Amino acid sequence: MYVILVYDIGEMRVARMLKLCRKYLNWIQNSVFEGEITEVKLKEFMGKAHTIMDLDNDSIILFKSREQRWLDKQIIGVERGPVTNFL
Amino acid sequence: MYVILVYDIGEMRVARMLKLCRKYLNWIQNSVFEGEITEVKLKEFMGKAHTIMDLDNDSIILFKSREQRWLDKQIIGVERGPVTNFL
Repeated sequence: MYVILVYDIGEMRVARMLKLCRKYLNWIQNSVFEGEITEVKLKEFMGKAHTIMDLDNDSIILFKSREQRWLDKQIIGVERGPVTNFL
Repeated sequence: MYVILVYDIGEMRVARMLKLCRKYLNWIQNSVFEGEITEVKLKEFMGKAHTIMDLDNDSIILFKSREQRWLDKQIIGVERGPVTNFL
């Protein structure tokens, strides 16, 4: 399954969330990630994300699509991809 | 067509971009919008967005899907929807 993930996380927790997201997905903009992921891996990610999040203040929005080809992605302006894929 | 829009815009320009996006789409998180939009309206929006953006520093990522039902949206944590729909 293909997912787009966007987070809005308090400053105190954002570095940990960024690191976690980069283990499972590709970073495409400040707080936006995308990638292919299995249901099992997504559940694993969600479990870890919950331990980082303050559910009263933070949020994650997840868009799931069975097929990446159903979504057309367009970038306008700077491409802010990750400088490196190494953590 | 259904779109998800995420922006990363310099502080000096972000208020104008927020206002513009809210005219065309629904605000669902800090810098994330979604909604149904026609090709014509999207082009109109893009023209206006270009006049606001500094293309060397800002970015917009747009995901387009012909059908909203191809995407499943899930929100974890706080729902940061707009406080009001009035501009």
